[in-house]
Amino acid sequence: MAGDLAVQVPATLLHEQIGHQLCAWGMGADAAAETADVLVEADLMGIDSHGVALLTLYDDLVSTGGVVPGGQPRVARSFGATAVIDAGGALGHVPSLRAMDLAIERARAFGIGAVAVRNSNHFGAAGIYALRAARAGLIGVATTAVHKASIVPTFGRVPRLGTNPIAFAAPGRGGPAFLLDMATSTVAIGKVKLAARAGKPLPAGWALDAEGRPQTDARRAAADRLMTPLGGDRGGGGHKGYGLAAMVEVLSTLLGGASYAPLRPEGGKPNDVGHFLMALAPEAFRDAGGFEDDLDAFIACLRDTPPAAGAEAVLVAGDPEFAARAQRERDGVPVPRSLLDDLAAMAARSNAPFVLGAQAA
Amino acid sequence: MAGDLAVQVPATLLHEQIGHQLCAWGMGADAAAETADVLVEADLMGIDSHGVALLTLYDDLVSTGGVVPGGQPRVARSFGATAVIDAGGALGHVPSLRAMDLAIERARAFGIGAVAVRNSNHFGAAGIYALRAARAGLIGVATTAVHKASIVPTFGRVPRLGTNPIAFAAPGRGGPAFLLDMATSTVAIGKVKLAARAGKPLPAGWALDAEGRPQTDARRAAADRLMTPLGGDRGGGGHKGYGLAAMVEVLSTLLGGASYAPLRPEGGKPNDVGHFLMALAPEAFRDAGGFEDDLDAFIACLRDTPPAAGAEAVLVAGDPEFAARAQRERDGVPVPRSLLDDLAAMAARSNAPFVLGAQAA
Repeated sequence: MAGDLAVQVPATLLHEQIGHQLCAWGMGADAAAETADVLVEADLMGIDSHGVALLTLYDDLVSTGGVVPGGQPRVARSFGATAVIDAGGALGHVPSLRAMDLAIERARAFGIGAVAVRNSNHFGAAGIYALRAARAGLIGVATTAVHKASIVPTFGRVPRLGTNPIAFAAPGRGGPAFLLDMATSTVAIGKVKLAARAGKPLPAGWALDAEGRPQTDARRAAADRLMTPLGGDRGGGGHKGYGLAAMVEVLSTLLGGASYAPLRPEGGKPNDVGHFLMALAPEAFRDAGGFEDDLDAFIACLRDTPPAAGAEAVLVAGDPEFAARAQRERDGVPVPRSLLDDLAAMAARSNAPFVLGAQAA
Repeated sequence: MAGDLAVQVPATLLHEQIGHQLCAWGMGADAAAETADVLVEADLMGIDSHGVALLTLYDDLVSTGGVVPGGQPRVARSFGATAVIDAGGALGHVPSLRAMDLAIERARAFGIGAVAVRNSNHFGAAGIYALRAARAGLIGVATTAVHKASIVPTFGRVPRLGTNPIAFAAPGRGGPAFLLDMATSTVAIGKVKLAARAGKPLPAGWALDAEGRPQTDARRAAADRLMTPLGGDRGGGGHKGYGLAAMVEVLSTLLGGASYAPLRPEGGKPNDVGHFLMALAPEAFRDAGGFEDDLDAFIACLRDTPPAAGAEAVLVAGDPEFAARAQRERDGVPVPRSLLDDLAAMAARSNAPFVLGAQAA
């Protein structure tokens, strides 16, 4: 798209703009800063769909009452190594940071800790929370449901599950963390949108039409949002991806008592999305350093896998994100001009300062 | 195959034969009975690859020293809601039953419990352990590594991970449990063997050749055992399946200090395979019955999904297994004649009684 060249924006400036916007919607300054931390971290790690670009989704959620911007999280339940946080209808980032911090605290006391979050909303990239545990020396797990279903169960033609991601991170000693962050759909909806913009057809296994047949028309697929579970059709193992998406829903929604999107009452607001955050302390299971050394050796062995004909190298989960981070901390985050325009309009609508004007010029 | 018609064998008789065989290898009577429970349960649930048929694999493992049949599991470490069990080189079934029982006990005390098992071996079907937790009213998770790598990392041409399954079960109130039990490869190796026997080609996404290209020759694929991760190639999301298989390895092998197959010293015996068993108590997170009611409603909603053109109905993870169980408890377990012949020869070699003779006649 001619008008959609990307501009390199320093992360600090993005952070400032996100904070202004969130405060204008009614979020407190501390919560806004922490939410901006999570979004900018995703932008730095190359997860463009889950950084500043999410403000356009959040704008919708705020204006339709799905989110209570000033909602306050509180611990609603606490038992042994577990807890439940009620997010007060707020965006999910701050409640989920508190939930992971609590899971880490419990894991230090009991070897493992798990915290469910309910009455929440979109929390950005799941990997950020898992990585928070790994940076503290623990294994981290984060899953979330989504306010809207888009994955169609195997043999079905109507969506019943969100793209329900699973994130898992584990700390090494010398090397980087292992960091898996994956939607349980075959591809993210963003990839379908990219193909639609480029006018390219989709591979047969990514999306479905209204009859449950493969949809290769990218524009229609982007409009319909009928995504296959990881694996695609039954022959490709799609029932496994469907099972994983359902597992994520059980942990994220049912365990903490959030509402399951297809059964949510019509007009029920706020969205009441659920998350699940878990931490495991390696030192409960191993002598100090044993796990981290083994993780470094494991990652090295995977990275050492002889590459296939025509391939350059085998990567390990987290490699692309950490590489993007090193580059973007130096060079800034590429933001499409069309998104800068949207952010400017959004700021104007809510009387928020707009500090990216010099970038967009 | 002309000689490979299946014979219906009552589960009790299979149980008896498995017990005799395990005892002949040097396992104690109680452990043999519990191991037979796990294998027969898989047979009843239609998981033919993980029932009595596994004795042929175990015969190899025993004769090559990979397994110590009389090995005794012991709790090697215990901290808060976690523990580590050393399986003493034994087959993995009994150590994993003890591990799940301990995880359930800890989950009742702390809301969640996790137990790693090391110095173990093949434990049969992961779903059995997860279902054990669900039958006790808890959410169960079971993962295991495998003594031999067969999944090839994305962009690679050499296997680095076992078919590393994930099992997850959750209890309903009136309805059946949710039960997911899936290898993180696109398909089980057994499916490739079936295609090879039938002389059929493989779909392009299931297996690879020695250069990392799609292998559609089923016979060569069955011999090479170079399996793709769930999702197949990069475009199908195979890097996600690769990431999940690696996550399972971190939990099953690295967390408890078992050995990672590609880095295991040549000739190192026994195999030192690892597992991970976890339980979550819903009543720590919800008022009594809330989770189970929501799970029933969730399963009903999934099962109610309008079917795709040409499809009969949408299933939920566990449906095929529970249907098989109802039928096979009534009609017996179909066992191929060739397998009965193998079991007879195995019994003869180790001076075990053979009680399936009348069946094979």
